[in-house]
Amino acid sequence: MKVVALSGGVGGARLVDGLAASLDSDELSVVVNTGDDFRHCGLWICPDLDTVMYTLSGRAPIDRGWGLAEETDACMNALKRLGGPSWFHLSDQDLATHLLRAKGLDEGLNLSQVTDLLFDAHGLKTQVYPMCDAPHPTRLLCDGAEMEFQQWFVANQAEPEVQAVCFPELGVASTAAVRAVDEADLIIITPSNPYLSIDPILSLPALNEALENRKGACIAISPIVAGRAIKGPLGKLIPALATRPASAAAVVAHYGDLVDGWVVERGDEAGFKGPVLKTDTVMKSRGDRKTLGRAVLDWAQPLL
Amino acid sequence: MKVVALSGGVGGARLVDGLAASLDSDELSVVVNTGDDFRHCGLWICPDLDTVMYTLSGRAPIDRGWGLAEETDACMNALKRLGGPSWFHLSDQDLATHLLRAKGLDEGLNLSQVTDLLFDAHGLKTQVYPMCDAPHPTRLLCDGAEMEFQQWFVANQAEPEVQAVCFPELGVASTAAVRAVDEADLIIITPSNPYLSIDPILSLPALNEALENRKGACIAISPIVAGRAIKGPLGKLIPALATRPASAAAVVAHYGDLVDGWVVERGDEAGFKGPVLKTDTVMKSRGDRKTLGRAVLDWAQPLL
Repeated sequence: MKVVALSGGVGGARLVDGLAASLDSDELSVVVNTGDDFRHCGLWICPDLDTVMYTLSGRAPIDRGWGLAEETDACMNALKRLGGPSWFHLSDQDLATHLLRAKGLDEGLNLSQVTDLLFDAHGLKTQVYPMCDAPHPTRLLCDGAEMEFQQWFVANQAEPEVQAVCFPELGVASTAAVRAVDEADLIIITPSNPYLSIDPILSLPALNEALENRKGACIAISPIVAGRAIKGPLGKLIPALATRPASAAAVVAHYGDLVDGWVVERGDEAGFKGPVLKTDTVMKSRGDRKTLGRAVLDWAQPLL
Repeated sequence: MKVVALSGGVGGARLVDGLAASLDSDELSVVVNTGDDFRHCGLWICPDLDTVMYTLSGRAPIDRGWGLAEETDACMNALKRLGGPSWFHLSDQDLATHLLRAKGLDEGLNLSQVTDLLFDAHGLKTQVYPMCDAPHPTRLLCDGAEMEFQQWFVANQAEPEVQAVCFPELGVASTAAVRAVDEADLIIITPSNPYLSIDPILSLPALNEALENRKGACIAISPIVAGRAIKGPLGKLIPALATRPASAAAVVAHYGDLVDGWVVERGDEAGFKGPVLKTDTVMKSRGDRKTLGRAVLDWAQPLL
């Protein structure tokens, strides 16, 4: 069975970790959002790719959505003492990832090639593809002006109200990502933020077309738990962007025909249509992730 | 009195530290070699500027020619574990300097502006100017092929025999550096390597012309101690490049008419012509540097 997961950061990465526990490395591929990527202090930072990488390595923190669990901040503290930018955290071992990525890009590799190299360096065999190689930055329309994603999300702690999510510079979907979707028997939309993590992937014409023409079934894990967005800024984004409450109905309407079946938190099934798996979707431990991954794969079999 | 020092890394930086102890910040300016600068993992590394900065901050190690005395290597160790480049050492706090420089360059500042910003961030008031803003890389002809400076110096530990030092991409001397030389009452060639640290500065046409047309006196501190090059690869370079032994005579011949007076190690005065100050030129402690700086300035007074 060929499975492809569409993923952003934390929630997506944890489900991917659960799926990887049940699938061989040639059965699973992951298409990762790169809309959050940005240049910082000479380095090219790919937050979602790194979160997937650190999560699959078992080195991501449980209680934090970025970086490594066991880390030091000698560089960051020195940068702060020098009056350097402190709004985006660069810890010491995490910096090694960014330096190695910068080296690869300097040498003319594209982001897909550098991602291969980094996952390989981290000892990971899962096939992980950036959604595109060229920048395709997510920008947010706030108070009538476009704001860079990290400026909104990190520097301003996702506080400015968002009127629209936009993709002003269109990238081209990476060949490997499109092929993975084309060949997939099962496409899994992870519980990452639909607007900020999945929409950037869907905004790439070739990937969108591949998803519309899919031979495989497409299922989604709902990010709604106990009637609310499970985490992050989604709770505020749904009312702002979908002009309805953060609810099952809003998420169902958002993905529309793309989704052939839903995995939803037990008790949140009202409002979801078609085949629905009711289960525990909140993943804390690696055990939770493995259990959910296995449950999703088993449940999806009859849909194929 | 306006004094300008021409400096490379360690030896030059230590004398500059000694001069700074005796001069007000508006009396001393320093023109620093940037021929060793290079791009590494997305960052622009300026070894001599950083050595001058760390030495003036009192944070440079006594027993090592680069980096900071009190440092950690969390990032470098992680980079090695990932199979990243280990030939050039990037320690944690030192990285903060490189990140802040990269940020400034990304924002469109030139190297002079970024250098101002970095020295200011380190709390230093001495006026330090990169010899030029654009790259002006030193390359070494070894076995008939051009080698990048850091490849030769660090990666190959200065072992390949050098047939010639070349400057294949001519930069333009920075305005501030030229003005400092124009206005100087006293120009001091520090005991940095004549071929690798001072010649790159002299290779810039506008700086060379300013030095030839100097209104001030130009003195040099000889890097020869006990008949040999005091440190680094100079001992091998003089015989190779000047086709004579590493001696006073070789250094005197190398600088020629540029030097109006010499500061030489006591006992090494044979071969030096014109006004000569015989003293202890080896600087270990900050006290040594201050003593030598003071002695040089006092001795130079009658030459002005």
